[in-house]
Amino acid sequence: MTGYVRRMRDQGRSPASSAVEQNVYKVFPNDLNAERTVFGGLVMGLCDRTALIVAERHSGHVCVTAAADSFQFLAPARTGDTLLLKASVNRSWRSSMEIGVRVAAEDTRTRETRHVVSAYFTFVALDDDGRPTDVPSVLPDTEAEERRFRDAQRRREGRLAMRTPR
Amino acid sequence: MTGYVRRMRDQGRSPASSAVEQNVYKVFPNDLNAERTVFGGLVMGLCDRTALIVAERHSGHVCVTAAADSFQFLAPARTGDTLLLKASVNRSWRSSMEIGVRVAAEDTRTRETRHVVSAYFTFVALDDDGRPTDVPSVLPDTEAEERRFRDAQRRREGRLAMRTPR
Amino acid sequence: MTGYVRRMRDQGRSPASSAVEQNVYKVFPNDLNAERTVFGGLVMGLCDRTALIVAERHSGHVCVTAAADSFQFLAPARTGDTLLLKASVNRSWRSSMEIGVRVAAEDTRTRETRHVVSAYFTFVALDDDGRPTDVPSVLPDTEAEERRFRDAQRRREGRLAMRTPR
Amino acid sequence: MTGYVRRMRDQGRSPASSAVEQNVYKVFPNDLNAERTVFGGLVMGLCDRTALIVAERHSGHVCVTAAADSFQFLAPARTGDTLLLKASVNRSWRSSMEIGVRVAAEDTRTRETRHVVSAYFTFVALDDDGRPTDVPSVLPDTEAEERRFRDAQRRREGRLAMRTPR
Amino acid sequence: MTGYVRRMRDQGRSPASSAVEQNVYKVFPNDLNAERTVFGGLVMGLCDRTALIVAERHSGHVCVTAAADSFQFLAPARTGDTLLLKASVNRSWRSSMEIGVRVAAEDTRTRETRHVVSAYFTFVALDDDGRPTDVPSVLPDTEAEERRFRDAQRRREGRLAMRTPR
Amino acid sequence: MTGYVRRMRDQGRSPASSAVEQNVYKVFPNDLNAERTVFGGLVMGLCDRTALIVAERHSGHVCVTAAADSFQFLAPARTGDTLLLKASVNRSWRSSMEIGVRVAAEDTRTRETRHVVSAYFTFVALDDDGRPTDVPSVLPDTEAEERRFRDAQRRREGRLAMRTPR
Repeated sequence: MTGYVRRMRDQGRSPASSAVEQNVYKVFPNDLNAERTVFGGLVMGLCDRTALIVAERHSGHVCVTAAADSFQFLAPARTGDTLLLKASVNRSWRSSMEIGVRVAAEDTRTRETRHVVSAYFTFVALDDDGRPTDVPSVLPDTEAEERRFRDAQRRREGRLAMRTPR
Repeated sequence: MTGYVRRMRDQGRSPASSAVEQNVYKVFPNDLNAERTVFGGLVMGLCDRTALIVAERHSGHVCVTAAADSFQFLAPARTGDTLLLKASVNRSWRSSMEIGVRVAAEDTRTRETRHVVSAYFTFVALDDDGRPTDVPSVLPDTEAEERRFRDAQRRREGRLAMRTPR
Repeated sequence: MTGYVRRMRDQGRSPASSAVEQNVYKVFPNDLNAERTVFGGLVMGLCDRTALIVAERHSGHVCVTAAADSFQFLAPARTGDTLLLKASVNRSWRSSMEIGVRVAAEDTRTRETRHVVSAYFTFVALDDDGRPTDVPSVLPDTEAEERRFRDAQRRREGRLAMRTPR
Repeated sequence: MTGYVRRMRDQGRSPASSAVEQNVYKVFPNDLNAERTVFGGLVMGLCDRTALIVAERHSGHVCVTAAADSFQFLAPARTGDTLLLKASVNRSWRSSMEIGVRVAAEDTRTRETRHVVSAYFTFVALDDDGRPTDVPSVLPDTEAEERRFRDAQRRREGRLAMRTPR
Repeated sequence: MTGYVRRMRDQGRSPASSAVEQNVYKVFPNDLNAERTVFGGLVMGLCDRTALIVAERHSGHVCVTAAADSFQFLAPARTGDTLLLKASVNRSWRSSMEIGVRVAAEDTRTRETRHVVSAYFTFVALDDDGRPTDVPSVLPDTEAEERRFRDAQRRREGRLAMRTPR
Repeated sequence: MTGYVRRMRDQGRSPASSAVEQNVYKVFPNDLNAERTVFGGLVMGLCDRTALIVAERHSGHVCVTAAADSFQFLAPARTGDTLLLKASVNRSWRSSMEIGVRVAAEDTRTRETRHVVSAYFTFVALDDDGRPTDVPSVLPDTEAEERRFRDAQRRREGRLAMRTPR
């Protein structure tokens, strides 16, 4: 655990305290595109809904999506598969948080899973008047959480650098 | 563990191996009825989809809903709440299984949860020709699982007795 | 007609005055599960919406689902079928009502129908502040309505006995 | 009954034999437009689905929408209202049929109904290869049915005359 | 340009200033009916949503659908097709406007398009209290726009004449 | 125009030939999250559907989403707004293409627009057996198209570098 993290411990929260361990979604025929695999936009929507829960749990406020990046679809999901979604907060700044989401597809019969996509979401917490409001620090406990905590800062700088709209 | 259960251990499976521990669903304004609480039919659909995953995991086959009973709504869920769904298999018979589902609503800000509804589903496993097919036994491990295993048999007898369509 | 019913006649209403005789729903491909039959959760949602209409007609108030039980799926419905739903109030208590729903599937070409499922719903009527409010008595007219009136009381006692959440 | 109708009686069918007497649809908050009244496109979709059932019942074939006209919205429907839809076949030609649909909105508390919209649909019946196929004649029984039978021919001529796409 | 139009120029608007040139909609499997072509009611809903945008742009007010007529389906749309929708205002009266919509289907591979359906919608503009309010005149610029402007008056008279609900 | 581009002219296609100039989407109450602004996942789904059309037009093949990145939400969209979506192909590689999407929100009354979000999608073209297949080159015509053509290569290298799943 870094010194920076130790100093914030009292007013912060661990990723585990707000994480979604296993959201499941059974793929139905109406979720498919013309190629009979799961429509990419559906997966993005599921990720957003799952990440939102983590953001609201961590902050204790209503949150809205500020950014989403790095969807890289590694494998298709098909009818009959079950999508498994994990999400946890990586780091927070004044009023924003980065949430990581990981989606796998589980084959019903063999129970084999494939990694489908991962993505990072940034959410902003809002107070009752709809203005950005402070959120608790993130206090990583495990080594994986510390790595995500550090990487999140690097990704944030990349996002700020790219903030020149097309 | 009862003697009956011990004898089936080799070809059976524990409830934990197919359980859904925490399916989450963020309530949105379009899920509400005229009273601004979550539409009962939406909750039933979520329960059915979640229980289906457990049935297909336990059996390794495509499954269809054969029965659903005992929805007792104990508390309403509202916009902004997160629904938390747990489901596990209680017992199996030749080609059918009873799955129990429990739904709670979590308030985003306080993290308080209320028990919303519980229900029991019966699913039938189908082979590739769409005919009922054998499913593995359920092997309860914990005391709670053993209680559900016993109660499931009693409920099944009640269902068979009531099987005189209206 | 029993004496009990006769005494309530003046302030009560017949089941026919609020019944839904034939709600229809054409099955579309997006209503199907992986087995190409109608998703159980969709049928439950349709039943809830249809029963809700009966409850609000009988009571003259906004109603919410309090319980749903005894879905026993007797036959599958498929693409191209038309679902036919009938619903009527069986009995009422202080602020609650039991509504029975029956779903059949009609084959478009042959006009043959199969009984798909029946279920009982309990709704609670709410006043403008969202609190339970009194509802009119049910006054059965036909022999079938009287039988349902009596059976509803027995089912209610079963529900109250089972009210120990899982 | 006209002579023309009498001659076709043996191979034809009455409107009543395929009619939908009362399809119901409970309006939910997610069915509303920005003005908080029911979205016109939703009502058109409900009319199409209901008329389709009548066309497939009358013809005994899969049918597709060929035309829809004369939606005149006379009154808005709001949250909490129940939409009531009636539909019946007015007349048929070689492989097509005109279906009339009438939508009313019922206020839950007062049971008052308002006429919301009426419309005429033309459907074509298809055989198993997707080609237009013959449909039975319509045999009006009542005076209202005879009037609709005659008016349908006039409307069809209007439609053919207008068939110069924009 | 006619003299009538020239006189209204100052307070009116051209059709081009509010037109939707090319709304696109990718057909997915869940948009299909049992014949595997696009459900007529879906197309009507898309037309209504697209026409609504034109009406609100032209009037600067919230609008509701008052009428829709003359859907004549000329060709089916299938999975994988892209629907292309064009819509523009033809003429306005005190508080109402006629909007024309044209739908084509584009085959992804060949880029060939087929005309699917055209229709005319009438919208009414509402003020903040939900009452009809004045809308700007339509000032046709091109010959096609002038023709639609004249034809719209004829169609409106037809609609008023037909306003005897079924 | 660069020399590289000139050499590919004969077998390539311009961005304009497959672009979607203005897809529109009218926001309805059922598209909103608890904060009454448009749900981020809905916008992502609309972007994916719009970009898919461009990819299939450019390649002449069925396409699936391979990646999506850089959603940066700059402003919220609200009920009554119209979303305006533009999409065009920036560059292609063997069997993949980068599509840029830009979403703005238009206020109905004032016609003012705000930039809501921009994003880049990568699609892969598939042949009839579902395997990746070659796609035409992109031939930028304007200066903006040349800039996007160059930047797309840089972004692709960033994506490949990041391809170590979480």
